[in-house]
Amino acid sequence: MRIVRTVDEMRRVRAGLPSPVAMMATLGAMHAGHEALLDVARGEGASLVASLFLNPTQFDDPADLARYPTDPDRDLGIFEGHGVDVVFQPTVEEMYPAGATTEVDPGPVGNILEGAHRPGHFRGVATVVTKILVVLAPDVAVWGAKDAQQNVVIRRLSTDLRMPVRHVLVPTVRDADGLALSSRNARLSPEERAEAPVLHRALSEARELWRGGARDAEVLRASVRARVGRSRLARLEYVSVADADTLRELDEGRPGALLSLAAHLGTTRLIDNVTLD
Amino acid sequence: MRIVRTVDEMRRVRAGLPSPVAMMATLGAMHAGHEALLDVARGEGASLVASLFLNPTQFDDPADLARYPTDPDRDLGIFEGHGVDVVFQPTVEEMYPAGATTEVDPGPVGNILEGAHRPGHFRGVATVVTKILVVLAPDVAVWGAKDAQQNVVIRRLSTDLRMPVRHVLVPTVRDADGLALSSRNARLSPEERAEAPVLHRALSEARELWRGGARDAEVLRASVRARVGRSRLARLEYVSVADADTLRELDEGRPGALLSLAAHLGTTRLIDNVTLD
Repeated sequence: MRIVRTVDEMRRVRAGLPSPVAMMATLGAMHAGHEALLDVARGEGASLVASLFLNPTQFDDPADLARYPTDPDRDLGIFEGHGVDVVFQPTVEEMYPAGATTEVDPGPVGNILEGAHRPGHFRGVATVVTKILVVLAPDVAVWGAKDAQQNVVIRRLSTDLRMPVRHVLVPTVRDADGLALSSRNARLSPEERAEAPVLHRALSEARELWRGGARDAEVLRASVRARVGRSRLARLEYVSVADADTLRELDEGRPGALLSLAAHLGTTRLIDNVTLD
Repeated sequence: MRIVRTVDEMRRVRAGLPSPVAMMATLGAMHAGHEALLDVARGEGASLVASLFLNPTQFDDPADLARYPTDPDRDLGIFEGHGVDVVFQPTVEEMYPAGATTEVDPGPVGNILEGAHRPGHFRGVATVVTKILVVLAPDVAVWGAKDAQQNVVIRRLSTDLRMPVRHVLVPTVRDADGLALSSRNARLSPEERAEAPVLHRALSEARELWRGGARDAEVLRASVRARVGRSRLARLEYVSVADADTLRELDEGRPGALLSLAAHLGTTRLIDNVTLD
């Protein structure tokens, strides 16, 4: 496994990789969800490149960035164990050269839901993902379904900027009690961790209503609000029933629609989603 | 000479071109300034690709777009005559696929000078140039020095987005009386055309002051204002003495600084610049 720290070297290395080249990108603090992405990417590519970069511009809250868990040695070990050929691990200065001002703006989809609560977050995501896609030039990129809105933003920008990459979504990996794996879960207190599965339970119960014939999207949202509302520790930030491509809110559920939420447990903010089937 | 109309075909054709690949991009309405770019690009590349695309998103004024001169058959003949190997001539729908919302924002440098008078112009430029650079993946791109701020924006975005392209600037081509060639010159009335060289004369006289020892940038600007102010037909929009990389206004001139202006003659808006030497 080769570790590359500069854009120029990465480009040279990339030019010599067997095609198709698959990639996965992570901020670090890898968990089993990332491992699932690596395994899918390994199956998609003749070569597998992983980028490891804690991108500062997507953190709207400096405190969130400061306490983001990092353990690069452990991350590199996980890469190695899952057959990664090349790790792209640049510095901030390498990704944001002196005087950098250019940003990629995903448009309205970046300003709703997560974007409404995290101003600038998706500009930061879109900007760094554009750079990574330019440098790695992957044939295939894999992403986790948990970050549903991020995936909409990434599909949008790569289509709009005419990038020749195929995106593959990997289902969310969950703990046995349903909690979606997230690097942020490590910040939960024992009590918060015990309560956190309520988020997925709320989504699952609303999806059961859908499966049972409920079509009014507001009924599904109300069900989630009520379920999370009964939790002593969880505070719901939003719940959404939206078109999976545009993330516009729906009046009626439909197959493929995205049912998503964000909630706080103490100082930790978590997101989750399910798809109406 | 091959004419390519889709992104997918362009990418396939690009993959087969001998390196280095040089490119020039034009909105059309080619003149001798474009021809100079083609000749420089032909010398830089083993392959020469020209893009011909009247990009709507960089026109802040719909009327300006509507009356922009177009003559694609003539443009293609000029390409052929200057050794272009491939013309990329996409439709608007091909460059802005259904639902496209992603924009590339060059940051503060896009909001001053031209950007202050043409809101959104440089977002449109940065967005389309990013797409063209992604699709053509040139080793070298040539640009005309007349569009000084555009060139700053393009250098900025390609550095920031980590694109491996070398940019080459070609000196402004002028008519015998000094008027910088521009597709918009065709819109000037005979009287306006006779008066238009005042813009370059004003810049040249200020540069003479600089050469003669004037260092105060405001003296140089005042000289341009006075000279254009004596014209019956020209109306100065701005004059700038700025750092060539950031376009921040300077208090004192310096070698390499950009002395630039925009002015209206009737309904036609022209720009020009010289460099302090």
